[in-house]
Parts: sequence; structure tokens; C-alpha cells
Amino acid sequence: MIKRIDHIGVAVRDLDKTIELYKDVFGFELLEIEDVPSQKVRVAKFDVNGVHIEFLEPTSEDSPIYKYIEKKGEGMHHIAYFTDDIEGELEKFKEKGIKLINEEPVKGSSGTYIAFVHPKSSIILTELVSKGE
Amino acid sequence: MIKRIDHIGVAVRDLDKTIELYKDVFGFELLEIEDVPSQKVRVAKFDVNGVHIEFLEPTSEDSPIYKYIEKKGEGMHHIAYFTDDIEGELEKFKEKGIKLINEEPVKGSSGTYIAFVHPKSSIILTELVSKGE
Repeated sequence: MIKRIDHIGVAVRDLDKTIELYKDVFGFELLEIEDVPSQKVRVAKFDVNGVHIEFLEPTSEDSPIYKYIEKKGEGMHHIAYFTDDIEGELEKFKEKGIKLINEEPVKGSSGTYIAFVHPKSSIILTELVSKGE
Repeated sequence: MIKRIDHIGVAVRDLDKTIELYKDVFGFELLEIEDVPSQKVRVAKFDVNGVHIEFLEPTSEDSPIYKYIEKKGEGMHHIAYFTDDIEGELEKFKEKGIKLINEEPVKGSSGTYIAFVHPKSSIILTELVSKGE
């Protein structure tokens, strides 16, 4: 079962300016800034009452986030839901004919397991997240 | 102060198919389906652990949501934050040089007051929401 929204991923061109804006103007709590070389992004995570907003800046022109910004502009890129049964969810999605990017969970950051659902099937690019064992 | 995410607005072409998907596959609770003639949209509101996801289907070709889908495709359109002091927030945004769509709060649905911040200034099209008096 999907329990809650884990985070919203937002594609941005300039992470430092974004951090300034969301810290100083919106008043959100900055949790961490992290390099994710596998996705070629630098990430700033903010907390808004338990839901995280993750701003993603591409670090290379072959980053998927770079390509997204070129095509669609800056803005909300994906939504991630927390579930305590990612395998069961994926099974259910498959049964219902939903197209998955990851048919099996893959390792995410901070000991999580994640899987992406294809936006063609879910309107929004959707990530499922669960804690590791 | 911004307290929490109130809702995420998502632009969709086919509300009935979307409702089926998010009820049956995602398992989210459908709260209501509403016509909003002022915005020329039909809205389906789902609850995900206190955060709402609002799917917006244009009911006319001159709906802002219709134009959005034509330009950018279906997907996340805006994020709304709940505040108990919308006037104070707008004042702070103005002082910091943030461009606003609504310089003063306007009446929203269900007795709320709302104001939009320009996406040029906030990366994401942002709505502030507060309860009416």
C-alpha cells in the first residue's frame, strides 16, 4: 500500500539560487545537499512538514535532468510515494497493465529501494520508495 | 509561515481515466469531483495522507489548463502551500522581489483565500492557500 508522498523532484538550472530562494523566501528547512553521480545531478533536499522537495541540478549535458529541462523547462519532474511493500506494489501495477521503468526494485540512496513507473501509464513520472531490510 | 503542502495540481486530458487509475491502481481515496467554471476545469481531489492531489481536466479550449497541456503535455502543473498568514507571506514575497500573479489574496474554493506566485520567480507555479475568516 502507498502510505504517503515521500518527495517531489524538481528540475532546476541553478541549484545555489534555488537554495537561496527556498530557504530565505519560502522559509523551508534545508536538510542536505548531495552529489548523485549515477544520475549526474546535484540535489538539495528540503523538508515541508514531512514531505521532501528535492531540487535536482544537472551536472552534465548527458544527465536525464539536463535533457528534461531542454525539452520542458524547469519545474516538477517526478513524484515519489513511500510504500512498505514495493514488490507487492510492482506486482499489482504489472497485473493492471501499468508500464514500469523498473520491473524490480533497485537500490536508491540512504539504504532505500526504489522503482520508477513510466509516465505514459501514470501521467506523472512516479517513483516508489521503500526502506531496505 | 508556510505550514505544509496543501495540494499538487496535475493537468490531465481525461479525468475519468485518471480517476480509475488513481483509485484502482494507486489505491488513493477519492474525496470529490467538482466543476470549477471560473477556471474552466473539472477537478478530482484525492487524499494521500493529508496532502491532496488535484487532477484538472480542461472543459474548454480557452481553459488555462488546456493551453498548458498543449504546450507542455499532461503532468504536474502547480503546488499549493497552506499558510495561516497569507497576507504576511505575500508581503514578504514582495519585499524579496518575488513576482506575484495575485498581489492580494482572492477567494478560492471552500471558503479559502488563495494567491499565485509567478513561476518565473519560484521555478514552480506556486499557490498560497489560507482558510477564510
